[in-house]
Amino acid sequence: MNLATSSGTVRVPIALNERSYDIVIGSGLLADDACWDGLPASADALIVSNTTVAPLYAQALATRLSQRHRRVLQVQLPDGEAHKDWATLNLVFDALLGAGCDRKTVLYALGGGVVGDITGFAAACYMRGVPFVQVPTTLLAQVDSSVGGKTAVNHPLGKNMVGAFYQPARVICDLAMLNTLPPRELSAGLAEVIKYGPIADAEFLAWLETHVEDLRALEPRALAHAVQRSCEIKAWVVGQDERENGLRAILNFGHTFGHAIEAGLGYGQWLHGEAIGCGMVLAAELSARLGLVAPAFVPRLTQLIQRAGLPVQAPVMPGARWLELMRVDKKSEAGEIRFVLLDGVGRAQMRGAPDALVLDVIAAHTSTD
Amino acid sequence: MNLATSSGTVRVPIALNERSYDIVIGSGLLADDACWDGLPASADALIVSNTTVAPLYAQALATRLSQRHRRVLQVQLPDGEAHKDWATLNLVFDALLGAGCDRKTVLYALGGGVVGDITGFAAACYMRGVPFVQVPTTLLAQVDSSVGGKTAVNHPLGKNMVGAFYQPARVICDLAMLNTLPPRELSAGLAEVIKYGPIADAEFLAWLETHVEDLRALEPRALAHAVQRSCEIKAWVVGQDERENGLRAILNFGHTFGHAIEAGLGYGQWLHGEAIGCGMVLAAELSARLGLVAPAFVPRLTQLIQRAGLPVQAPVMPGARWLELMRVDKKSEAGEIRFVLLDGVGRAQMRGAPDALVLDVIAAHTSTD
Repeated sequence: MNLATSSGTVRVPIALNERSYDIVIGSGLLADDACWDGLPASADALIVSNTTVAPLYAQALATRLSQRHRRVLQVQLPDGEAHKDWATLNLVFDALLGAGCDRKTVLYALGGGVVGDITGFAAACYMRGVPFVQVPTTLLAQVDSSVGGKTAVNHPLGKNMVGAFYQPARVICDLAMLNTLPPRELSAGLAEVIKYGPIADAEFLAWLETHVEDLRALEPRALAHAVQRSCEIKAWVVGQDERENGLRAILNFGHTFGHAIEAGLGYGQWLHGEAIGCGMVLAAELSARLGLVAPAFVPRLTQLIQRAGLPVQAPVMPGARWLELMRVDKKSEAGEIRFVLLDGVGRAQMRGAPDALVLDVIAAHTSTD
Repeated sequence: MNLATSSGTVRVPIALNERSYDIVIGSGLLADDACWDGLPASADALIVSNTTVAPLYAQALATRLSQRHRRVLQVQLPDGEAHKDWATLNLVFDALLGAGCDRKTVLYALGGGVVGDITGFAAACYMRGVPFVQVPTTLLAQVDSSVGGKTAVNHPLGKNMVGAFYQPARVICDLAMLNTLPPRELSAGLAEVIKYGPIADAEFLAWLETHVEDLRALEPRALAHAVQRSCEIKAWVVGQDERENGLRAILNFGHTFGHAIEAGLGYGQWLHGEAIGCGMVLAAELSARLGLVAPAFVPRLTQLIQRAGLPVQAPVMPGARWLELMRVDKKSEAGEIRFVLLDGVGRAQMRGAPDALVLDVIAAHTSTD
């Protein structure tokens, strides 16, 4: 299913009928012609990046794109989850309209999850839809957010509340770009890598337990395997349930708690991956309390998350605030909070839980310092 | 193809595979159970209306919906094209999130084109997509904007530049609601009715020439025929080209000139239908100058537009401003303005035209008072 190319590059296909596309994984992909072949060519391209990533890679990407487009424009967004809002999204529309870009313009998202989500949503909406390509530069974006077509911005009352399902034309994961990633961001990305183990692949979880230090050290073979396996699992899930009518929700393991942490502390205080790391501990504990997984699994997962450099203790927030924040989660139905919980190791399910039990679980993993 | 129901109600189907839906046309539809059967029922509904329409019909609609939903919420937007922007769209998200509405919530657009476009775009984006129903209360919305799934808001640099293709679950055209429509709005709606003649149906054009005064007098049988025939033509076009890759663009006859008038004078100075009325005169003239239609067709169409109560003289704007405004049109490609022009009476085509000729056409129909 996955084709290794001559240069060691791997392609993971996402099968979505006329919206199918490939995730290309390799090193030094800006120089790899095959990686760019077949993408839509048109008069105009816009590289959307942020003030941190653009100085590192925008010029090189622009040079590559100038072979395919007559004009290659750029816009730099402010960096960080705190800026994932309408005002930042509008900077993309301003750039497109200010330059007179037509509805064949191709957008390139060069950055992490925030840049990818904003660029994808801008592509979904600009003139009711233009093509876009993901060029994720963080581990989190390479293994999760750039794949699968979920795009959004935040609303003051909830994360990712305004968005679209809109698939990219291709995802280009250049592992060499991870060399410039700060260690804290690398750890945040590992949260989404670890996620795939408990929900879908017990063997991958065991592999991570022996390779987590290699990943933090950016060991190339370990990194390539982790990104490829993560993308394969995500491709398998998204291919079955593009618009999250069921199965796809399992990818939100740890996210109900995690989104509450992000919104409760203010976007950007904890990185998304950090909130998900802690959120997975809480979700595992809740699963154990409901008898869905062995109690010993909780310290096992907690230890791996900790070794990845992620927080495992929840921040202090009043119980009512936790519940209020979790109730606006997109998985809620008619006011009931629904969690992605485990069903043994390597499987997940969606279900509700009594408020009192949920608060008990949070209390058991809240720092008392 | 179109089924007349026992009550004289007509259904015009729009065939778009899993996104297919019906346009229901009749009088007093709030009281007609069959009209509402089969729509998604869920815990929450939100009626989106504006400060002009809500006092007339929101309570009656809420009463009807309370039979299908546990909570029926309402939000009133400011009235008018000048408010078709992100700030107004965000009022809908604020209402949804403030009330804790989940992703099964059904939105109901109760109003004219602006309310319908904003509500549809809000439905497309809220939690990445919730169902919505169009309840158009203006003639323009009943015959055009509520049908076909084009949703959008304006950007300061161009009309409808940010939006989505997102189909409603049903369009409910209650002809009785037109009784409260101000005459100026009725005339504006007639512009979009008239449009269908030149581009698709010479016979309908001739019918309009004998019935335009009946329509302005809201004669029920004439009105029912005009709305039905307009919806049939639109359904036929949209069914073949949902995302405007080709044919659908013909529905934009008069719109390249018209959008420039709206943007150039400031949204809301001329009603959309007024700008389209004048825009059709210019598009017919340009068609005649290019030898695509007989010169005598221009005064013929001009007369009908005038009888509908619409302006036929373009406002005074510098030529460079006209061209600049038309170049940001969504149909432009690589900087070339593309017009929907006639191909005889009852057929349309897309093509470019020399700037000098376009300016000459505008000058020939600009008031010199």
